[in-house]
Amino acid sequence: MRDGQPGALILLRHGESEWNATNQFTGWVDVDLSPKGEQEAAAAGRMLAERAERPDIVHTSVLRRAIRTANIALDAAGWSWLPVRRSWRLNERHYGALQGKDKKATLQAFGEEQFMLWRRSYDVPPPPIADDDPYAQTGDPRYAELPAELLPKTECLKDVVVRLLPYWYDAIVPDLLAGKDVLVVAHGNSLRALVKHLDQMSDADVVGLNIPTGIPLVYRFDATLRPQVRGGEYLDPEAAAAAAAAVANQGR
Amino acid sequence: MRDGQPGALILLRHGESEWNATNQFTGWVDVDLSPKGEQEAAAAGRMLAERAERPDIVHTSVLRRAIRTANIALDAAGWSWLPVRRSWRLNERHYGALQGKDKKATLQAFGEEQFMLWRRSYDVPPPPIADDDPYAQTGDPRYAELPAELLPKTECLKDVVVRLLPYWYDAIVPDLLAGKDVLVVAHGNSLRALVKHLDQMSDADVVGLNIPTGIPLVYRFDATLRPQVRGGEYLDPEAAAAAAAAVANQGR
Repeated sequence: MRDGQPGALILLRHGESEWNATNQFTGWVDVDLSPKGEQEAAAAGRMLAERAERPDIVHTSVLRRAIRTANIALDAAGWSWLPVRRSWRLNERHYGALQGKDKKATLQAFGEEQFMLWRRSYDVPPPPIADDDPYAQTGDPRYAELPAELLPKTECLKDVVVRLLPYWYDAIVPDLLAGKDVLVVAHGNSLRALVKHLDQMSDADVVGLNIPTGIPLVYRFDATLRPQVRGGEYLDPEAAAAAAAAVANQGR
Repeated sequence: MRDGQPGALILLRHGESEWNATNQFTGWVDVDLSPKGEQEAAAAGRMLAERAERPDIVHTSVLRRAIRTANIALDAAGWSWLPVRRSWRLNERHYGALQGKDKKATLQAFGEEQFMLWRRSYDVPPPPIADDDPYAQTGDPRYAELPAELLPKTECLKDVVVRLLPYWYDAIVPDLLAGKDVLVVAHGNSLRALVKHLDQMSDADVVGLNIPTGIPLVYRFDATLRPQVRGGEYLDPEAAAAAAAAVANQGR
């Protein structure tokens, strides 16, 4: 906490999940971290402790892989006592009818153009998931108090921005403006949505944005909550650059 | 949640800690769970899930062994998404100058009568801990916002009752009266203090009360928040009785 200055925002994307190995679309399906993902979480916690980036409050999605990443990271840092809040608004993008589907089979069934539209376009959501789909969130008690019109059945990144921003403004900004440092542990697409907003990225530019797993990304702000450094600063810039290069090379 | 009826209160005492093996007084020293303690926590979570005792909200102390017990139990039950609040008011009794001391050496140095007074009497606290004692909480950031006059330097069980009750009335009772089920994951003495209040036990009777580790204890209430069953109901009564008998036999 610093006098008269907004607090820092630390973003952390959860590490590898169990469905990484099985190559399925995940979205809101509540899969656990893989052992590698647990190691990434502990390493992130040690990195935060070494750099003395201790948040005053922690936010997570309501999905297990983000919650366990936060628990493991905070425990590794010795900060498990920090207050924590959770919200579905920080959840991963809902992947609609693709949730649970094999990625390769989906690519073969729908072709590369459609596949890439669903994966990477800003405003094209996959088909909605059916209520009786085994990978739908029907009856999940964690969403029981959510009105049906708020519970997504599919989402594009634009939808994620829309449902995320109320939480940003109502639950995170007040703490930042009070000078508190805030850690958000969430998902590839909810963090992309937040970074798009922070950096005022265009709809086109965010398509190329990737946030590596397990490397804390720190935003510091001026008094009007504009980032001092566009894109923020990774606590381990070399590892972040290597991860970005690996993603860029995936398609080759 | 049940209509017009207070929610249930589930109490869970954390399992074995690392200082169980080393036989040191713990109190507010932030030791971790032992591997056995982790297993106890997971077993408690499975027990809650099997009995469908899903709380609506979870409270923990700010000590790692209770927080990790909650994290592990909730994860084992599939409920890691539940909202959680933490408070120093749920902490273990502060053991004063005895914190970190070897129990056997303390017994030899002070004699059995004084030793048992500190351990078991309702209103005799150990000597206060010195600010420069390595086991004092001086400078611990989790207590930084606590005024010096609130931060204990030693406590008897009576002191625990006094500092616990504001949290009971302000943070737990409103949820119970709103029909929400509440899980409290805490410590031997903070749970004894709470049970003393719930059951309106005398100062003399609470001396003989022991709460076993890792076995959820459920209180259901009438409309005025009086326990339907005095002493509550353990989810595994046989294990609880065996643990109570083991404690009773310890002195023999």
